[in-house]
Amino acid sequence: MSRVRVHNFTVSLDGFGTGEGQRLEEPFGHAGSRLLQWAFPTCTFMDMGLHGEGTGSTGIDETFAGRWATGIGAEIMGRNKFAPTRGPLTDDWRGWWGENPPFHTPVVVLTHHPRPPLELEGGTTFHFVDATPVEALELARELAGGLDIRIGGGATTVREFLQADLIDELHIVVAPILLGRGERLWDGLEGMEDRFVIESITSPSGVIHLTFSRRGD
Amino acid sequence: MSRVRVHNFTVSLDGFGTGEGQRLEEPFGHAGSRLLQWAFPTCTFMDMGLHGEGTGSTGIDETFAGRWATGIGAEIMGRNKFAPTRGPLTDDWRGWWGENPPFHTPVVVLTHHPRPPLELEGGTTFHFVDATPVEALELARELAGGLDIRIGGGATTVREFLQADLIDELHIVVAPILLGRGERLWDGLEGMEDRFVIESITSPSGVIHLTFSRRGD
Ligand SMILES: NC(=O)c1ccc[n+]([C@@H]2O[C@H](COP(=O)([O-])OP(=O)(O)OC[C@H]3O[C@@H](n4cnc5c(N)ncnc54)[C@H](OP(=O)(O)O)[C@@H]3O)[C@@H](O)[C@H]2O)c1
Ligand SMILES: NC(=O)c1ccc[n+]([C@@H]2O[C@H](COP(=O)([O-])OP(=O)(O)OC[C@H]3O[C@@H](n4cnc5c(N)ncnc54)[C@H](OP(=O)(O)O)[C@@H]3O)[C@@H](O)[C@H]2O)c1
Repeated sequence: MSRVRVHNFTVSLDGFGTGEGQRLEEPFGHAGSRLLQWAFPTCTFMDMGLHGEGTGSTGIDETFAGRWATGIGAEIMGRNKFAPTRGPLTDDWRGWWGENPPFHTPVVVLTHHPRPPLELEGGTTFHFVDATPVEALELARELAGGLDIRIGGGATTVREFLQADLIDELHIVVAPILLGRGERLWDGLEGMEDRFVIESITSPSGVIHLTFSRRGD
Repeated sequence: MSRVRVHNFTVSLDGFGTGEGQRLEEPFGHAGSRLLQWAFPTCTFMDMGLHGEGTGSTGIDETFAGRWATGIGAEIMGRNKFAPTRGPLTDDWRGWWGENPPFHTPVVVLTHHPRPPLELEGGTTFHFVDATPVEALELARELAGGLDIRIGGGATTVREFLQADLIDELHIVVAPILLGRGERLWDGLEGMEDRFVIESITSPSGVIHLTFSRRGD
């Protein structure tokens, strides 16, 4: 069975996966770019072509970051990761990532305002669906050709899949900042440690990498 | 000037410093003894005589735990660390720690229900005061004879002193558990990283030790 994975999802010390006040100029709201500061210099993020030019780092942060694409056949994301708007999705919005997004797989976008699929270059097609996590996962599995499914965020979506106990493998990064407000990742997950082996390691960049692997896996 | 320090204060991954439903049999409520599991086997906690017999560990966890007493002249704690009750403090309650508590200094207990001081063996005297953090600190400094002040918890009290920006040195331990409910440490502390250099290290016991030192110190 294909596995359901989360990679590189970053929270502040106080547990927020995004800030307050998302808008076109600030996808993370008042958090700005602070959450993912650790990731931008890595090879993996540099290669996405979204964070400047250069070769990128190959240290501890890259070792974690680099796992996000391998073996992935589809991503599931929330509509606030896809778009800064609320309510119906407008036809002119094609995502934050330009005409050749870094996903290169089908992407299921969860939304209460479905619209027709959007096919971009490089193998990325966005499918907009109003579905429960279980249904979305079923669809993603059909689209993934036997490969793994990545739950790509934001906080609401990752939390929803954790609460439904649908995630097999979770990589969380804790950034040493306090956002104070925004969307919390950890709400309603009491006792999750019973289902996962949790390991952690710190990186010279200042973040802490946490891995959650299912007990018995 | 004497310094204001926090040591060994432990939060769950989701940021709770104590659970819900404190009572005589469960000082940490539904969290039970899970938060401080890392600390019990250390030399420092073993020597308090509250956590079993033995010599105690001398590794990474002990290296952090052992700093709590050195140079401390007084502690400030909240009344829920002192007692499991709410409302007026009853005369028969003498703290959780027996007749010879491990503090061996004056202890200022913050409460809206003051009562006369309680002197126990080994140098521990509890002073019950209704005071702002600044006032409590002033009193603790008078009692501490030039030595440092420890803010001993619980979560509400540490948070209150952090919010008032009165803490110079903070050691926080993150335990890999999700409590889901209880008293949060990090609320209302947006941007605290601007005032502190934050470092972290993981321990083989599974916890993460975080140190916060004032920038420019
Ligand atoms: N910290 C990180 O590493 C990281 C990673 C990725 C993204 N992000 C950031 O996270 C932010 C977005 O996170 P978020 O928590 O605000 O939102 P999100 O998880 O991206 O999206 C939540 C929205 O998706 C729709 N949705 C979710 N589940 C649904 C379901 N079962 N059925 C139908 N619709 C559903 C709803 O939108 P509608 O009702 O409006 O359709 C819901 O409000 C963005 O700022 C993004 O940049 C952070
Ligand atoms: N995680 C750890 O490492 C750690 C360390 C120590 C303790 N703990 C645990 O934390 C729990 C207690 O934490 P908590 O957050 O519930 O409470 P707490 O911080 O111990 O006490 C809060 C109470 O102290 C009184 N108080 C606080 N500030 C005051 C002020 N400025 N003026 C007057 N009164 C004031 C109030 O009580 P009244 O209004 O009722 O007087 C308030 O409800 C206990 O379970 C303890 O075992 C955990």
